[in-house]
Amino acid sequence: METNLLKNISVDCVIFGFDMESLNVLLVERTMNASQSNDTLFSDLTLTGHHIYENEDLDGAAKRIVNDLTGLKNLVLEQFYSFGELDRLQHPNDQLWIDQFEGALDKRVVSIGYYSLLPSLNVNIKQKGRVVKWYPVNEISELAYDHTFILEKAISHLRYKLRYEPIGFEMLPPKFTLSQMQKLYEAVLGVELDKRNFRKKVSQMTYVVPLNEKQKGVSHKPAQLFMFSRDVYEKTKTERYDFFV
Amino acid sequence: METNLLKNISVDCVIFGFDMESLNVLLVERTMNASQSNDTLFSDLTLTGHHIYENEDLDGAAKRIVNDLTGLKNLVLEQFYSFGELDRLQHPNDQLWIDQFEGALDKRVVSIGYYSLLPSLNVNIKQKGRVVKWYPVNEISELAYDHTFILEKAISHLRYKLRYEPIGFEMLPPKFTLSQMQKLYEAVLGVELDKRNFRKKVSQMTYVVPLNEKQKGVSHKPAQLFMFSRDVYEKTKTERYDFFV
Repeated sequence: METNLLKNISVDCVIFGFDMESLNVLLVERTMNASQSNDTLFSDLTLTGHHIYENEDLDGAAKRIVNDLTGLKNLVLEQFYSFGELDRLQHPNDQLWIDQFEGALDKRVVSIGYYSLLPSLNVNIKQKGRVVKWYPVNEISELAYDHTFILEKAISHLRYKLRYEPIGFEMLPPKFTLSQMQKLYEAVLGVELDKRNFRKKVSQMTYVVPLNEKQKGVSHKPAQLFMFSRDVYEKTKTERYDFFV
Repeated sequence: METNLLKNISVDCVIFGFDMESLNVLLVERTMNASQSNDTLFSDLTLTGHHIYENEDLDGAAKRIVNDLTGLKNLVLEQFYSFGELDRLQHPNDQLWIDQFEGALDKRVVSIGYYSLLPSLNVNIKQKGRVVKWYPVNEISELAYDHTFILEKAISHLRYKLRYEPIGFEMLPPKFTLSQMQKLYEAVLGVELDKRNFRKKVSQMTYVVPLNEKQKGVSHKPAQLFMFSRDVYEKTKTERYDFFV
């Protein structure tokens, strides 16, 4: 069956990965060569995004686009905001890039933002024609289109949610140390945290459960391992936040 | 300057109003008459929404559309989610309605959802061709398009935010009684709350400040008035939620 790309609607996915040190995001190289000389006109980076097909819903498009660009499947992708500024594709590079598609894409595009959280950078990325790589968030300066803005908005959303919900645990292994957990919070919040204060706060989170198990195969003194219990989290949620019910 | 409507992108606004008793939403009548007999083919209700112009950003479109339909200006409109299900306009009524615009609108439309909170139903609505009225949320059964779903999603969003942020105060007058505040929480959360428990919880909210002032012109014993202090809220925010910084 013939299906068409919608010229003016896209999905952009912010795929975050935590490597136990810093917060990273998956970016795609966008390189444009001169048609005659094959010289590189420009090369920059975009989020994993593209236009949606007329017979796709938004969630389906997000999954398909990530798979098309990276080969990754079964990511949990959550919508967080939509972007429709008039100048979002106004950089000369963006205009040059769009021109090559000869009317298949509009120059005014509304994009639906999705994000995903991965507990490792060690995923099997299949480069399908475009180069896709992890970049530490705090080393990214300027992305193509309005993708710097979309990335910032995704990080704000992540910080907001991290305050109220245990979403961070999706970026940790099933068993983790408190140092790893602290690193994650520091990476997402973009600040250094006081170790003693952090541990005091974590000790109040009944859903971060200590295990009878220590780290293995480390050169330093092995640290206690913990797990996140969604059961305990759900059971104690009401006491914590639900002031009125 | 000639500008075109985007055939496949719309904005739908969920305008909530609280009348000290129940949560209401502003809806627009959609009535279709037979072209020959002028008999009514159907009449149902939609949210305040429409397609965006190619030279409008999303926030601007939301404001313009609300103004076009209701005459209301200067509402605080916040984006909460976007809707792109393939069957969102598949009801025969929706298809009939779209057909009359002869290709100016597509049958597959992605809509960006916005919401707004008003502390009164007593606003000056100018009916501009379409009938626009307030409806209590808990009396609404089925809306046109996927607007029942959009409304439900907006209410979920409101409930989620109400737990963590003092957004409810936008729906109360500047000076309010604790009974009014309780009614608001009951209306938004859709449950009855225990008065004693509610007041105990509110007494822990340092940002709900008692005034040296009582209600006037009421037949019952006048109740103490309170105000919401954003200053106090911002100052005490860190202690409450920001576990780690």
